[in-house]
Amino acid sequence: MKIGFIGIGNMGEPMARNLLLAGHEVAVYNRTLHRAEGLGKQGARIAVSPAEAAADADVLITMLADDRALRGTVLEGGGPAIGALRRGAVHISSSTISLELSKELEQRHAACGQGYVAAPVIGRADAAAQKTLWVIAAGPPDQIARCRPILEALGRGITVVGEEPWKANLVKIGVNFVLASMVEALGESYALVEKHGVDPHQFLAVLNGGAFQSPVFENYGTRIADHRYRPAGFSLRLGLKDTQLALAAAESAAAPLPFAGVLRDRFLQALAYGHGDLDWAAIAEIARVNANLIPSLEAGG
Amino acid sequence: MKIGFIGIGNMGEPMARNLLLAGHEVAVYNRTLHRAEGLGKQGARIAVSPAEAAADADVLITMLADDRALRGTVLEGGGPAIGALRRGAVHISSSTISLELSKELEQRHAACGQGYVAAPVIGRADAAAQKTLWVIAAGPPDQIARCRPILEALGRGITVVGEEPWKANLVKIGVNFVLASMVEALGESYALVEKHGVDPHQFLAVLNGGAFQSPVFENYGTRIADHRYRPAGFSLRLGLKDTQLALAAAESAAAPLPFAGVLRDRFLQALAYGHGDLDWAAIAEIARVNANLIPSLEAGG
Amino acid sequence: MKIGFIGIGNMGEPMARNLLLAGHEVAVYNRTLHRAEGLGKQGARIAVSPAEAAADADVLITMLADDRALRGTVLEGGGPAIGALRRGAVHISSSTISLELSKELEQRHAACGQGYVAAPVIGRADAAAQKTLWVIAAGPPDQIARCRPILEALGRGITVVGEEPWKANLVKIGVNFVLASMVEALGESYALVEKHGVDPHQFLAVLNGGAFQSPVFENYGTRIADHRYRPAGFSLRLGLKDTQLALAAAESAAAPLPFAGVLRDRFLQALAYGHGDLDWAAIAEIARVNANLIPSLEAGG
Amino acid sequence: MKIGFIGIGNMGEPMARNLLLAGHEVAVYNRTLHRAEGLGKQGARIAVSPAEAAADADVLITMLADDRALRGTVLEGGGPAIGALRRGAVHISSSTISLELSKELEQRHAACGQGYVAAPVIGRADAAAQKTLWVIAAGPPDQIARCRPILEALGRGITVVGEEPWKANLVKIGVNFVLASMVEALGESYALVEKHGVDPHQFLAVLNGGAFQSPVFENYGTRIADHRYRPAGFSLRLGLKDTQLALAAAESAAAPLPFAGVLRDRFLQALAYGHGDLDWAAIAEIARVNANLIPSLEAGG
Repeated sequence: MKIGFIGIGNMGEPMARNLLLAGHEVAVYNRTLHRAEGLGKQGARIAVSPAEAAADADVLITMLADDRALRGTVLEGGGPAIGALRRGAVHISSSTISLELSKELEQRHAACGQGYVAAPVIGRADAAAQKTLWVIAAGPPDQIARCRPILEALGRGITVVGEEPWKANLVKIGVNFVLASMVEALGESYALVEKHGVDPHQFLAVLNGGAFQSPVFENYGTRIADHRYRPAGFSLRLGLKDTQLALAAAESAAAPLPFAGVLRDRFLQALAYGHGDLDWAAIAEIARVNANLIPSLEAGG
Repeated sequence: MKIGFIGIGNMGEPMARNLLLAGHEVAVYNRTLHRAEGLGKQGARIAVSPAEAAADADVLITMLADDRALRGTVLEGGGPAIGALRRGAVHISSSTISLELSKELEQRHAACGQGYVAAPVIGRADAAAQKTLWVIAAGPPDQIARCRPILEALGRGITVVGEEPWKANLVKIGVNFVLASMVEALGESYALVEKHGVDPHQFLAVLNGGAFQSPVFENYGTRIADHRYRPAGFSLRLGLKDTQLALAAAESAAAPLPFAGVLRDRFLQALAYGHGDLDWAAIAEIARVNANLIPSLEAGG
Repeated sequence: MKIGFIGIGNMGEPMARNLLLAGHEVAVYNRTLHRAEGLGKQGARIAVSPAEAAADADVLITMLADDRALRGTVLEGGGPAIGALRRGAVHISSSTISLELSKELEQRHAACGQGYVAAPVIGRADAAAQKTLWVIAAGPPDQIARCRPILEALGRGITVVGEEPWKANLVKIGVNFVLASMVEALGESYALVEKHGVDPHQFLAVLNGGAFQSPVFENYGTRIADHRYRPAGFSLRLGLKDTQLALAAAESAAAPLPFAGVLRDRFLQALAYGHGDLDWAAIAEIARVNANLIPSLEAGG
Repeated sequence: MKIGFIGIGNMGEPMARNLLLAGHEVAVYNRTLHRAEGLGKQGARIAVSPAEAAADADVLITMLADDRALRGTVLEGGGPAIGALRRGAVHISSSTISLELSKELEQRHAACGQGYVAAPVIGRADAAAQKTLWVIAAGPPDQIARCRPILEALGRGITVVGEEPWKANLVKIGVNFVLASMVEALGESYALVEKHGVDPHQFLAVLNGGAFQSPVFENYGTRIADHRYRPAGFSLRLGLKDTQLALAAAESAAAPLPFAGVLRDRFLQALAYGHGDLDWAAIAEIARVNANLIPSLEAGG
């Protein structure tokens, strides 16, 4: 299939490469073009505008940071992708975006005779490279069916959560909220045991060995115990954005989310220290700051 | 070894049985004696007082609900165990108790020439039966060494977290706090997706299949999605007690714990509905109540 | 002076009447025209569009519900006021709006050679009628000076909080946040004493007689103790909007606001019960709901 | 009347003096005797034990820091007051204590044929000196009647809130919770406006001039805007104690109190900085710390 791929960042770059390796023809676009050069050497065609990436694609994939970036390339800006995408083509949106934008994309693509599937992914850049992402997909069954070979080329599993695309975005927002809650729970419990003289690594050994037995707890738990937040697999600034997506989804459903309120304040305190570029797991350090274990948020090693 | 075992409840009963099966001589005591009868048929000697259970034991194990119950059998009451336990014997306390009581026990036993090891366990009644508990142990190395064969007969692994017994209690309190935080995060995320029309089972499939890959998330996540809170593996009332132990430990260390504050209010709201006897995972339902998905907390099937 | 007045609601209607009584020539506009009819009988000219209200005004006053309403009449929509307002005229914006919109209005009016003063008011509809509002004003000193006679005709006092108009909006947002916090503190303390068998009226007598001695505590405290939330002086739905303005202002400043997080959840729970039209003081009832004193939020008398 | 007065601290000293000035015969006791010397020069008899202060009193007044201090002088310790107090005498307890201790005192005094009235007061040391305290009283009507002349000699007003003494303690706990909530709301709103460049003094002028019109807002609001926390009128450490009394009262009633959870964490963070001796209003600074306006909690001027 001919694929257009917009957004060649930490995640998009390895995802697009896996599509090349699976034998697809891929045209890539990134706002700062040089990030796409590596893929060019590996056989991708480099497009100089969103419209050019979309022009003759069967499937357009977008993997962008937030609502604004997606809106600015697909719906608005000079030469938006939607205007160039042909009738019958499908847009697979893998970005973590708001329910509202996802609903708007569904309508706009339908009006253009184009398909739209939301397919955000779980996993960080290393998982993208190793093709171990998990894809959350939602959209009309026939469009999902058409996109399935491509989605399978991106990760280790797919869960289809409904026929309305925005439901995949909702599930992704929910998963990130639970992940952030785990980070905060680790931060608070580490601060508690550390202040009483117990090494958080030892606590983690019990917590994960004796209870959770989860690679995610192992990975985040070790990173936090080591105070290792650079390079950011997923930045604190984006973590705040995702927490706000959860709060916005909660508001449109009239569902209180007290943990999300706590998380929001943790992200803001970290940003007040100027550390928006650290890995989002760094919010775990706020519990240590507020217990006066460390004077301020600092990146480890 | 000769073992005295006090507290034959959901947890203590299978633990004592495993000690019998491992070939130890076990005398058991329970406040309501009939709960000990089953063990009597399997070869345990039934003691009619804490003192009698302790009288000629090499090792006294206690598995009781809270500080008050432990204090009332070991330190106080008519014929407390500490008075009957001989010099050189060791008390293994497996209850989830406060740091203060653990420190007091350490001093009191030392004054009596007795040993004291704290060894709370991770796992519910089924894990106790299957010998898959995880033991968190702390105490003087020589006493830990003496007790190791017994601790190994109780579960699948042991982590020694320090030489001061209370540190094992602290770690246990921290683990339960993270577990309760997971329950709350599940409750909030389920309410969020359910109110938007997504089935929590489907959400869990993504959350655990795509991210956590944890038997604990699977177990609790399914129980909560099924609204299955009877019989209680661990009661809501005890869950509040453990949250208060976390808050008390946080206070003595001057460490703020915002998630624990949220948890406390969840437990209180559940108790306000009169549901202290449900499984503690039922606090996950409070998010549904407050989002007006259900009128009040109710037990499922 | 010739005054255009847009937004003839609970607040705008008595404010515009006071300007008529002070001898000004007033043209009024409201989206649903019939609300303006009363003023028409008292001497106001009724305009049929925002542009007509603004057309020959020296001063344009807007008193609208939120950002969207203000944007839709002054900046956008068919015939927005800004296009009709003449150079040299001043827009006094009394709505509680976001800092962002206030900054945008400042720029847009400057680009049109028009003045812009933000002047939100403290006080409810009865205070507007009695001319006891308090005006929070900000803007360039010369423009404030020009507008002063008009602002003085609206209330009992004026505080000028800076030369940048958005600072008046910030102060208004801050005041409403403290008011909502007072409502919540009353709700929680009332639930606490009521559940122990003490009448909240009696508690209020001590709280305000013995401590605060504040007409605001007296007014809200009595209303809440009486469960009297209809008619709404200020609706719960607008209360949520103001809390979100506080959260947004906190985010742009990277300032955590834990009380605002709690308030947000209270408003959402009240909305989940379908009670967005009650007076915002009704969030005080959520503490009673969650303590199981009442099954759900209900309006009193 | 013959009065015994135990607890000659910031509050007790001016209260006892007012009783002397009202013509009563007063015997005073304080753990550190020298604090009582000033009253000795003004005509009080200095007792060297709680029992001696109580021995021939018609009325015994206690004004102590917390449960422990009150228990240690009245019920326990060497020579507790209860043992010396004669049948028919009344104990007026003005300390802010737990509901549990108040209930226990009621029973113990009844068993000794003594009366018991709870009469905590609102107001700080300066109010005690100026006789402008507000007395919250509860107890059997006849005992209240007997004590009324004494209570009137202490302050500017009395509210009787019930016949069960502990209800006065509950109301006092509730009032202090609302006061602490006001301090926190001021702290958060000040941090918000300050970080946006608005002077908190100016914000307070609007908040209190335009809305609350309360001497309590004026007093605390100015103190906080000035960062003036020494000397402590009421210490941060005691503020935490009172918050815990609110949380304990909430627990025994199964009433969630989310604001109290936030307050608790504020006090703990302040204690983590080692500032338990500042005035409790200093918790307002935590919002500034967490917004990175100041590096840590520090006392002003």
